[in-house]
Amino acid sequence: MEMKKVFLPEREIPRQWYNIQADMPTPMQPPLHPETKKPIAPEDLAPIFPMNLIEQEVSTQRWIDIPEEVLEKYLIWRPSPLQRAIALEKYLGTPAKIYFKNESVSPAGSHKPNTAIAQAYYNKIFGIKRLTTETGAGQWGCALSLACSLFGLECKIYMVKVSYNQKPYRQLLMKTWGGNCVASPSSDTAYGRKVLAEDPDCTGSLGIAISEAVEDAVTSENTRYSLGSVLNHVMMHQTIIGLEAQKQMEMINEYPDVVIGCVGGGSNFAGLSFPYVRDKIYGKEIRIIAVEPAACPTLTRGPFAYDFGDTAAMTPLLPMFTLGHNFLPEPIHAGGLRYHGVSPLISQLVLDELIESQSYNQVQTYEAGLIFARTEGIICAPETNHAIAAVIEEAKKAKEEGVARTILFNLSGHGMLDLTGYDSFLEGKLTEYSLPDEEIKKAIKVLESYPKPEIVTKK
Amino acid sequence: MEMKKVFLPEREIPRQWYNIQADMPTPMQPPLHPETKKPIAPEDLAPIFPMNLIEQEVSTQRWIDIPEEVLEKYLIWRPSPLQRAIALEKYLGTPAKIYFKNESVSPAGSHKPNTAIAQAYYNKIFGIKRLTTETGAGQWGCALSLACSLFGLECKIYMVKVSYNQKPYRQLLMKTWGGNCVASPSSDTAYGRKVLAEDPDCTGSLGIAISEAVEDAVTSENTRYSLGSVLNHVMMHQTIIGLEAQKQMEMINEYPDVVIGCVGGGSNFAGLSFPYVRDKIYGKEIRIIAVEPAACPTLTRGPFAYDFGDTAAMTPLLPMFTLGHNFLPEPIHAGGLRYHGVSPLISQLVLDELIESQSYNQVQTYEAGLIFARTEGIICAPETNHAIAAVIEEAKKAKEEGVARTILFNLSGHGMLDLTGYDSFLEGKLTEYSLPDEEIKKAIKVLESYPKPEIVTKK
Repeated sequence: MEMKKVFLPEREIPRQWYNIQADMPTPMQPPLHPETKKPIAPEDLAPIFPMNLIEQEVSTQRWIDIPEEVLEKYLIWRPSPLQRAIALEKYLGTPAKIYFKNESVSPAGSHKPNTAIAQAYYNKIFGIKRLTTETGAGQWGCALSLACSLFGLECKIYMVKVSYNQKPYRQLLMKTWGGNCVASPSSDTAYGRKVLAEDPDCTGSLGIAISEAVEDAVTSENTRYSLGSVLNHVMMHQTIIGLEAQKQMEMINEYPDVVIGCVGGGSNFAGLSFPYVRDKIYGKEIRIIAVEPAACPTLTRGPFAYDFGDTAAMTPLLPMFTLGHNFLPEPIHAGGLRYHGVSPLISQLVLDELIESQSYNQVQTYEAGLIFARTEGIICAPETNHAIAAVIEEAKKAKEEGVARTILFNLSGHGMLDLTGYDSFLEGKLTEYSLPDEEIKKAIKVLESYPKPEIVTKK
Repeated sequence: MEMKKVFLPEREIPRQWYNIQADMPTPMQPPLHPETKKPIAPEDLAPIFPMNLIEQEVSTQRWIDIPEEVLEKYLIWRPSPLQRAIALEKYLGTPAKIYFKNESVSPAGSHKPNTAIAQAYYNKIFGIKRLTTETGAGQWGCALSLACSLFGLECKIYMVKVSYNQKPYRQLLMKTWGGNCVASPSSDTAYGRKVLAEDPDCTGSLGIAISEAVEDAVTSENTRYSLGSVLNHVMMHQTIIGLEAQKQMEMINEYPDVVIGCVGGGSNFAGLSFPYVRDKIYGKEIRIIAVEPAACPTLTRGPFAYDFGDTAAMTPLLPMFTLGHNFLPEPIHAGGLRYHGVSPLISQLVLDELIESQSYNQVQTYEAGLIFARTEGIICAPETNHAIAAVIEEAKKAKEEGVARTILFNLSGHGMLDLTGYDSFLEGKLTEYSLPDEEIKKAIKVLESYPKPEIVTKK
């Protein structure tokens, strides 16, 4: 019987996160203050984040110890299994070997708790009693509620009203873990009340929800704000995924030729790929592919520019590939990939040609997800289906070329709470929509007035 | 750092199921023909089940090889982790050690695929192309859809109409795996059409759904019927859970003092406990506790009698603890425990005092489930919360007595698709309802006219 799964014994769980800032061939350009447009200092962020996380954000130390208390919580589901998709390989008739890291086994069903637990812990030891955040589809709000529950912190989540009403299950998940989730705009903040006064029927946006969460954090006692993607320390916390994968692949004497993950803000992709990017920096031959939706093609078709992380233009300006912070992507089912920008770390690594990018439309991703569900049994999140579409492409290419390549991808989450997308696909209601050029031109106009980052690359 | 989880390497997955019929101190009494009320012969079941499964149903062979093709599918998620609930222990301040077998990591989120995959395989090699079944809340229909998808069989599920409408997500799960799920009563069978002609607004019942599924199986080509609990072969397929647990406990030099599981038809409980019941039969000191809802107290308060497995009185009469096949329990959230009877194997083992039984009301079970969710992070199925209520009781008793007992329970499924129960609990809408004596008296009246099984026990 062929090997289908590698468990890493828990005593071998990695004890440190990997900080790719130590190895990047091109150093990062600084975030800029939203008003002065000058580089911000760590202290500028202190009302929003605890200092220990701000230190991680700017650190260039290669390895950072994972605290025992964080490891203890990781062990609820980690090390996550490394699995081989043999039935999918057979279905495709490919000589390629397809491995995946299964992050769907976490209590929240995705990779998000890897950073939520770390952030809750660091806030707690910094003396913080309460965290605020925003959530769109609800994945991040759930993960942070879970983490706060495990460390005894209060958690307040501002959930975009339209999702709040459409996704009652995600709301109930947060509530079950003790999180206080309100529909945004809410009457709990000055900004929310202002929006509601102007438009009582406003269905909300991620921008409004961020504004409310940040206002709440800076105006409430012992409270900080928490973000689930984009930032450097978030990417670092996720590297536990790739570090485990490397140990597991070694246990079976394998090394991937291709590493694949889907990208919205970038955290699951960074988590699996950064340890492999390091190998590539030091000379290993390996392809690393970031996959995004054709409806929100940040890396494949956006410019590298300074832009706000949020729609309300309150965060620092970050150097990244972006479609402009006012860009509102089509309501594709992969809500986690509908972000106008992408992690600055990933952006620089794309400039340095260490990471490739690809995009797929919704029909392609659900075709791939359905094949996976019916061969391997696991129904993946719509975000993950983007990675699977690319995996199937690579596996077919391997077949055409007659090469037995080893492919590794990140199964970032299951789709148990996102089944309506599968239904729409099965009913033939999805389109092959791809963002038109004119839309991109329009959306990125806003970037013209900001300072330009240098395009420095070490190709 | 204390051990939180034991992975069994996949090469050590058990290669045989354990058939408790080989070791039972009291032999089983035969099922009776629904009309003649005489013992049925295996051939009588041939239109409904394939002969290879009927052979397993009556086999007294102790170990039955798990076919390679079944093992291959099991390896998608098996061996499932054995975990320790250290945060729960600390919360309770108990000297007890609490372990659980985590069956929620299967692609369907429960233990049900353990038998669904075996049944799909045996039907397939018997030449069957299509399976039918009924489903209430939808867990079983999902598991069978998954299994049929993995073996390329068609799957038709008759889902009780009221659940079909209330649980759209479960329906979509089946659809995504390629299952054809219709609301029952349906116009697809003669019986369904008859019911609809009499009452077009009928919201259905498990009895009607079984009747439709069986009619479809016996009247369609290359089609058989599949059942997810109660029967002997189903219990046997689930023993992979307990056999893995025994190996995992041995890896850490542990042996449980108490084994706990929730019971509806009995399959998850049998799966974990039967290998330990065997140890008990051969002299080991161990307590084994079956936990049921106070709203449906089959083992704790029902008589041992011959009764039909279904509401429509079409199946053979089975010797079991039962509340009468017409009994309709309150609509508690733990839909999987709302069954009027219980596995005949478990029933006999209760008579033989090898298994104890307990019951808890809904409020107690959700209190327990919420404590677990907020300490261990995992949100369990409402069925599983019954087991957790008993675990917490045992852990408290260990604290009072100052004894460091080892408790093992079956985490049979997660609650991601059953969150409304938690919401009702948090909103204070659940009651401590327990089935009144008069209701039981009324419900079991129907049993008077059937033959009585002997109450043979080897205490």
